[in-house]
Amino acid sequence: MAHTVRVGISVLRRPDVMIIFLSEGMSSAHADEMIKGLNDFGVTAHRTVFGDRQVVVTSIGKPGSRPDDETLQAGIRSAYHVERILVVDTSCQLANRQVRPEGSVVRAGTFSVGGGHFGVIAGPCTVETERQTCETALAVRDAGATALRGGAFKPRTSPYAFQGLKREGLKILAKARRLSGLAIVTEAMSPEEVKLVEEYGDVIQIGARNVQNYRLLEAAGRARKPVLLKRGFSTTIEEWIMSAEYILAGGNDRVILCERGIRTFEDYTRFTLPVAVIPALREMPHLPVVVDPSHAAGRADFVLPLAAASVAAGADGLLVEVHPDPKSALCDGRQSLTFEEFKRMMRQCTDVRACIG
Amino acid sequence: MAHTVRVGISVLRRPDVMIIFLSEGMSSAHADEMIKGLNDFGVTAHRTVFGDRQVVVTSIGKPGSRPDDETLQAGIRSAYHVERILVVDTSCQLANRQVRPEGSVVRAGTFSVGGGHFGVIAGPCTVETERQTCETALAVRDAGATALRGGAFKPRTSPYAFQGLKREGLKILAKARRLSGLAIVTEAMSPEEVKLVEEYGDVIQIGARNVQNYRLLEAAGRARKPVLLKRGFSTTIEEWIMSAEYILAGGNDRVILCERGIRTFEDYTRFTLPVAVIPALREMPHLPVVVDPSHAAGRADFVLPLAAASVAAGADGLLVEVHPDPKSALCDGRQSLTFEEFKRMMRQCTDVRACIG
Amino acid sequence: MAHTVRVGISVLRRPDVMIIFLSEGMSSAHADEMIKGLNDFGVTAHRTVFGDRQVVVTSIGKPGSRPDDETLQAGIRSAYHVERILVVDTSCQLANRQVRPEGSVVRAGTFSVGGGHFGVIAGPCTVETERQTCETALAVRDAGATALRGGAFKPRTSPYAFQGLKREGLKILAKARRLSGLAIVTEAMSPEEVKLVEEYGDVIQIGARNVQNYRLLEAAGRARKPVLLKRGFSTTIEEWIMSAEYILAGGNDRVILCERGIRTFEDYTRFTLPVAVIPALREMPHLPVVVDPSHAAGRADFVLPLAAASVAAGADGLLVEVHPDPKSALCDGRQSLTFEEFKRMMRQCTDVRACIG
Amino acid sequence: MAHTVRVGISVLRRPDVMIIFLSEGMSSAHADEMIKGLNDFGVTAHRTVFGDRQVVVTSIGKPGSRPDDETLQAGIRSAYHVERILVVDTSCQLANRQVRPEGSVVRAGTFSVGGGHFGVIAGPCTVETERQTCETALAVRDAGATALRGGAFKPRTSPYAFQGLKREGLKILAKARRLSGLAIVTEAMSPEEVKLVEEYGDVIQIGARNVQNYRLLEAAGRARKPVLLKRGFSTTIEEWIMSAEYILAGGNDRVILCERGIRTFEDYTRFTLPVAVIPALREMPHLPVVVDPSHAAGRADFVLPLAAASVAAGADGLLVEVHPDPKSALCDGRQSLTFEEFKRMMRQCTDVRACIG
Repeated sequence: MAHTVRVGISVLRRPDVMIIFLSEGMSSAHADEMIKGLNDFGVTAHRTVFGDRQVVVTSIGKPGSRPDDETLQAGIRSAYHVERILVVDTSCQLANRQVRPEGSVVRAGTFSVGGGHFGVIAGPCTVETERQTCETALAVRDAGATALRGGAFKPRTSPYAFQGLKREGLKILAKARRLSGLAIVTEAMSPEEVKLVEEYGDVIQIGARNVQNYRLLEAAGRARKPVLLKRGFSTTIEEWIMSAEYILAGGNDRVILCERGIRTFEDYTRFTLPVAVIPALREMPHLPVVVDPSHAAGRADFVLPLAAASVAAGADGLLVEVHPDPKSALCDGRQSLTFEEFKRMMRQCTDVRACIG
Repeated sequence: MAHTVRVGISVLRRPDVMIIFLSEGMSSAHADEMIKGLNDFGVTAHRTVFGDRQVVVTSIGKPGSRPDDETLQAGIRSAYHVERILVVDTSCQLANRQVRPEGSVVRAGTFSVGGGHFGVIAGPCTVETERQTCETALAVRDAGATALRGGAFKPRTSPYAFQGLKREGLKILAKARRLSGLAIVTEAMSPEEVKLVEEYGDVIQIGARNVQNYRLLEAAGRARKPVLLKRGFSTTIEEWIMSAEYILAGGNDRVILCERGIRTFEDYTRFTLPVAVIPALREMPHLPVVVDPSHAAGRADFVLPLAAASVAAGADGLLVEVHPDPKSALCDGRQSLTFEEFKRMMRQCTDVRACIG
Repeated sequence: MAHTVRVGISVLRRPDVMIIFLSEGMSSAHADEMIKGLNDFGVTAHRTVFGDRQVVVTSIGKPGSRPDDETLQAGIRSAYHVERILVVDTSCQLANRQVRPEGSVVRAGTFSVGGGHFGVIAGPCTVETERQTCETALAVRDAGATALRGGAFKPRTSPYAFQGLKREGLKILAKARRLSGLAIVTEAMSPEEVKLVEEYGDVIQIGARNVQNYRLLEAAGRARKPVLLKRGFSTTIEEWIMSAEYILAGGNDRVILCERGIRTFEDYTRFTLPVAVIPALREMPHLPVVVDPSHAAGRADFVLPLAAASVAAGADGLLVEVHPDPKSALCDGRQSLTFEEFKRMMRQCTDVRACIG
Repeated sequence: MAHTVRVGISVLRRPDVMIIFLSEGMSSAHADEMIKGLNDFGVTAHRTVFGDRQVVVTSIGKPGSRPDDETLQAGIRSAYHVERILVVDTSCQLANRQVRPEGSVVRAGTFSVGGGHFGVIAGPCTVETERQTCETALAVRDAGATALRGGAFKPRTSPYAFQGLKREGLKILAKARRLSGLAIVTEAMSPEEVKLVEEYGDVIQIGARNVQNYRLLEAAGRARKPVLLKRGFSTTIEEWIMSAEYILAGGNDRVILCERGIRTFEDYTRFTLPVAVIPALREMPHLPVVVDPSHAAGRADFVLPLAAASVAAGADGLLVEVHPDPKSALCDGRQSLTFEEFKRMMRQCTDVRACIG
């Protein structure tokens, strides 16, 4: 194998990487052994987990020193128990649609999204009281939502603004789950909060402002719960997918992408919803795509048309702010739907979804 | 009247204008007489036509010198045959939804748009040959389009690029109309071309780059055919409506607004389609709103999702590029649909439209 | 020649064009003769004037059919009186820096800009009265301005806003020129107005909103006066240069580019001044680059720092709004400098300019 | 006091806060006592440190419940040792220029910036080797830099890209400081890294992607070293100042703002440098403003003009990437200056700075 591999490596030109999925039942020790073998041929590599499989990814090196040829692949297949080998462009590896051509389905209790499953996450911007949270949970569940959102740790522009109920808020969310049965989606802003959300919640949300907070992404990669990763105000699609890649490379293959509007010169809405992101994400990564029309619009009366547009463009789900009494909300009341408005939105979106492939 | 009017004027503070619709049957001579009367009270005004009514609009002056009070209105009503008087904010007068709360319907032969009518304009970017144009006309008509588009005068970034067949192209479009029965929508780039398009076509298109070409807008205001006014790459909504106002103020009340994407930092599509513009335009002007998903996307495979999203958000119509053989198109082939793709798009959009109010 | 040329053509791959400068004294008849000769070899071409030379530009065709090889050049040189031949990339031909590596100097009376000459155009947004205009002309001249600006035809967002004094305004500008000696820079919005500005003024300004008004650019290309071409709110640099190319291709080689700020998400200034445009334009076209800090800033107190920054980055000149009494200005008063502020700005900019290469 | 205070509070309308600076020598116990006193009147407040003074800031409440009237101020002055009381708009409190009208000077060893001091931070993107780092330190010091930059923890878009030498890199930087005498500016991406940078470096850099990573900002607020806070790609000025406010509210009053370009539609530079941010920041917060022309430009040949423009617009300092051999740099080589280019830039910027107030 040695000889042919070296030949193979020497003719390489493109900056590709090889993703090697080990066979079912292989352990991390097997993967470590493979890495040692690759190292012997001057190929650096690292190990991660994707789904329930051990994966070895060859590291980026200078063109000319990386293995993507058939000889190397043949050598690996003959020496190890390998399920499949993918050679992909470096900008998007584990998130690459080639890794899971059928698209990922992410599941958390009542909530399934992607691969034909439509997920609707609804609830207040902020957990304010047990009553407000539980009432909303039941109302959105009855209208068709499949998960409850609500912030316990709130990223606020001002250090003097209300920062959330923190652990107390998580406990309220856990109660609302027991009551309603809905999975809980809630934000974490630090590795410590990731652990708390893992303990009390079902899906860890990473907010727009933390989309390139790499230490947080690494912590999310180590978590055993799915992650909903919002796009930043001006993150490019490629940067966003690479942030998802941080989570996948950390060993957590359950990532949901959530578009929430970008910053442009337009000022009649809070952000601009670039609806073309939905087909664009469909062709690149295999991850489910959810849209948050509430933050994009910044006003309740635009949430329904933006939600319907997102569904028509092929979104896998929605994330919507709903409050029993938007006028009295501690935060984002202007963009929150009432229970009645949410019901109407659900009816319309369900109808639109039935029309599209 | 004189005394009270002066009193009325003297207390004014807000920079408003008054729009006076004369009664049915009143002529321009009546309107001129009213203007003279207003002038006598120090109020400047000008005359235009809206639909089939003479309209007098009081001009902008310094705050404190403009008439919006009830005394002045009463004086006007007693002295002239007046149907109704509106006092509106200056930034949007004849385009203001208060002028036509039910929304405008713009009609041109087979083509109706607004007020519940859905208009679909389809055809090639550029008129290349009679055969290409007529074939496309029949195909899009059979798939449900209600108007044919096709450029005879082409605004091209480079002076060396193909500039269109000009008058020859208009003649081909006129033939395609005779053959298919479809109304013709085609672009004019100068007052002279406005006249030619009036002669051969049915709807005068003003392109994104000319959205603030005021001499052209004035010419369109004098035209006797409806105008489709595209948004500029970075025109704000208010600027766009004010450009429509130029046409309305010129006496042409049949204006269609067409969103075609704005320029942002996103680079995976040619432009960014800000779908929230649809509900935004719904609440401000009374003009129909059409979306051009072809230029927004810049690639054929994104046209269907963007079209469906636009319809779901409430658009009154679509403007889509279709070509018998996109690969051989002289211009914009990358974003043109084949006949088959257009048929599929129409089916999906019709279904989505049936779902929404 | 025929044989070798055909061989030459057949091996072409890149989409280039050839710019052929005829020798001094050659007439348009000579150029026409050359075009005929090229046509005989299947090469299309058109004729224009650059400076005082006849120029023949080979038209764009399909790759493989265009002449850029040495054989063709040799053939042309042997058959005609040719000064030099350039083969350039199509996206920027006559504006290409290779055409005039030393950079263009544009001159109009007192005003010279480019190639080491620093031009300062100052004056009111709008010509309001003879007194206001003449007073400003003398004040800016004494502070070091080399041209007077002032709008007679005003492009206004609202059709109801003051549209300028039109021909009356041009006459006032002509008087201010006689009084002050300063060259006059003033805007034209249509081919007709181009003629009027040619008659009364010295430099024809084309405003941001007309940067892609191709009929206007064509008219400016036929004019015998220099043209100052402002950038549009969101025109890319390439689009802007191509708009300049329209003017050059029309036979007018005296074009000045004027940056006036682009539209971004920033809202603390009217527009965003992208100062890097100055070195960017330095390396691509040969045209002088002037900056308008007044429109970019939208507020008088930011004009000085933006002007100084532009000079430090290498701008060839400035275009600044100055008014005897900004508070009473009919238009743009908020961003106009007083005479005193303009003097201070000139002192600082002169000092900064002395520091840079 | 009680009675008059309640009256005072009841008439409040504006959402202001009161910043109370205790007299020299007052301890945190004194501040806590004042907070208890305020609480007794229904006013919530929190304590921090600004410079060497204890500060009490009244928290945000509903309009009508907050104290800004003279009666309350008089009561506080009579009951406590107070140096001064400021009532400011909530969007910017401790960062507000009213707090330090003369502007802040931030000092760290050789490095002083703000209040007339010009600070130049230069060095490689990434610490690669001891030799590369030390050589650069000496070269930039000799050319006039007052601090050394160099990344040990690198925020990289891709999880597979080189992530920096980490603690090893910090040790190399500490060696370079011993050798050159220059203060060290280096980035931290997590609260743990803040502690490491405090240990080895002099100024803690927070990168563009972490500008709204509030847990990191809180950690920086607890640090005893100055903080350089970069602007995010699309952070508004207000959001950016509020992020600085997080650090100030945490008790660290030594914050430097660093503009590094924003994301717009322009694509000929990596980011767009909005030079007007310099005067804008001058009028709002009291913090020094430094510009990073290297990241804004993304190419070495534009760094000099952007640096000169920034200085001309009034920047307090520069942050520039310099590398002994840009072509072989592990990261950002395209935008790094050679030693020679940096020397030239320093000469020009020094000259320009001498021209401006």
